[in-house]
Amino acid sequence: MERSVIEALRARLPAPPPGDLWIGDDAAVVACGGARQLLAADVVVEGVHFDLSLVGIDDVGWKALAVNVSDIAAMGGEARHALVSVVVPRGADVDRLYDGVTAAAAAYRCDIVGGDLSAGERLVVSVAITGSVDGDPVLRSGARPGDALVVTGPLGAAAAALAARPVGDAHRRPRARLAEGRAAREAGASAMMDLSDGLLLDLPRLAEASGVGVVVDDVPVAAGATLEQALGGGEDYELLIAIDDPGRLTGCLVIGRCTSDPGERRLGDTDLPAGGWEHTW
Amino acid sequence: MERSVIEALRARLPAPPPGDLWIGDDAAVVACGGARQLLAADVVVEGVHFDLSLVGIDDVGWKALAVNVSDIAAMGGEARHALVSVVVPRGADVDRLYDGVTAAAAAYRCDIVGGDLSAGERLVVSVAITGSVDGDPVLRSGARPGDALVVTGPLGAAAAALAARPVGDAHRRPRARLAEGRAAREAGASAMMDLSDGLLLDLPRLAEASGVGVVVDDVPVAAGATLEQALGGGEDYELLIAIDDPGRLTGCLVIGRCTSDPGERRLGDTDLPAGGWEHTW
Repeated sequence: MERSVIEALRARLPAPPPGDLWIGDDAAVVACGGARQLLAADVVVEGVHFDLSLVGIDDVGWKALAVNVSDIAAMGGEARHALVSVVVPRGADVDRLYDGVTAAAAAYRCDIVGGDLSAGERLVVSVAITGSVDGDPVLRSGARPGDALVVTGPLGAAAAALAARPVGDAHRRPRARLAEGRAAREAGASAMMDLSDGLLLDLPRLAEASGVGVVVDDVPVAAGATLEQALGGGEDYELLIAIDDPGRLTGCLVIGRCTSDPGERRLGDTDLPAGGWEHTW
Repeated sequence: MERSVIEALRARLPAPPPGDLWIGDDAAVVACGGARQLLAADVVVEGVHFDLSLVGIDDVGWKALAVNVSDIAAMGGEARHALVSVVVPRGADVDRLYDGVTAAAAAYRCDIVGGDLSAGERLVVSVAITGSVDGDPVLRSGARPGDALVVTGPLGAAAAALAARPVGDAHRRPRARLAEGRAAREAGASAMMDLSDGLLLDLPRLAEASGVGVVVDDVPVAAGATLEQALGGGEDYELLIAIDDPGRLTGCLVIGRCTSDPGERRLGDTDLPAGGWEHTW
């Protein structure tokens, strides 16, 4: 959810009961039948999040589900159930759209249990997802000074894939890092989020939620991507993790560290450049 | 969800585990932390479900939440949490939209815990809702021959309100019958659903799901509505209930009964006319 609206909406809502976490993290945390449940929703809109001249309508279905699963992954949870609501223009190939949705559902062991379908002028796919978590979910707000900052893979692949012709898989079929999120939780990650809007926008969010400074001294750039794409490109869905001992994580890349100056935002010797990739409206 | 798509989607999905009910009822029933959870989603689309020259954008927000709560009411449950995803054209008054959403959330004691916001050409509000239920949820499929058919109030009010100028409250601010649904479950209702598409479309769905015939001999018409509006008008959100002893329900109106001939669809001395009000695409 966009930041300005997060605050506007949060201000209207009652305070969550103890143990609940509502708006502001990758997923909400609520109580359900004596357990904790994760809840998240993401919508993808034709002309804003995808271009049907570049990707298939099945890719749109995949992406709509995968970005929701990514929100669950970013809490260290498991995807459980999804509701898929679709607004389709006349003549759209809904069957092929569901091909992509159900392929992603099978890949991430997430059951589609309902949804809605309506006519409309532009394709919109709105997914809501539930998740479970074994133990405590990993929030954005838990990073501590001295923690290492880690990503689950090199960055910029999605931006580079979008710039390529034909458009590459990293854009068409983004991958949710469920196993990596679970491993990070089990390894004692103090904070975690998915990189949906790009490191330049997302890292300051984690820093602000945790009240720490951040220093980045190594940005791993995906093959075929530029440093700019790695810093500012969105939709990689790699996980950004803060953890005191990064040696407990395998296959991850240390990019920097958290500091005790909550105002610090540094990239090498310079200030972290502002910007990134956010859908405007 | 539209009928033809229900079947197309259901055919692709694995069979639900025992105790779960997925696509096909007002809400899905799943397991969550040792309890049963209800899950539903409904989307409202500008130009399809509402006309902003007739209703306020706050009314749209109210309606988007209330129709989801109605799905929970139709199972005899309580609304718990909602995720609200919004696609808004430039310049839309999102604050006023959230006024309506949060007013409905307060009225139905449903907590808004997350969602998403995106730009787009036409206003779309997509809500997903969770619910709890004390005991067994009331499905569409449990009606038995001999059960009385009951509605929670006279019909056609929403259609009449839409035809009026200015448009009336029954269209602008539909009401979810949570208390009525709970009372029906506690009174031993055998089947229940909400009347979202009108009696002519919805009653055959309950009959088919339950494998019973239906005979309607009294259609209660709301003040100011016509018989046609009462039969075919959608969006009343009154509950349609099958129950062996309607005397256990107060404030409800008996409209007919269930019969043992599963092909029977009768209105007085004639066949139930086909049709009703379904969004086409």
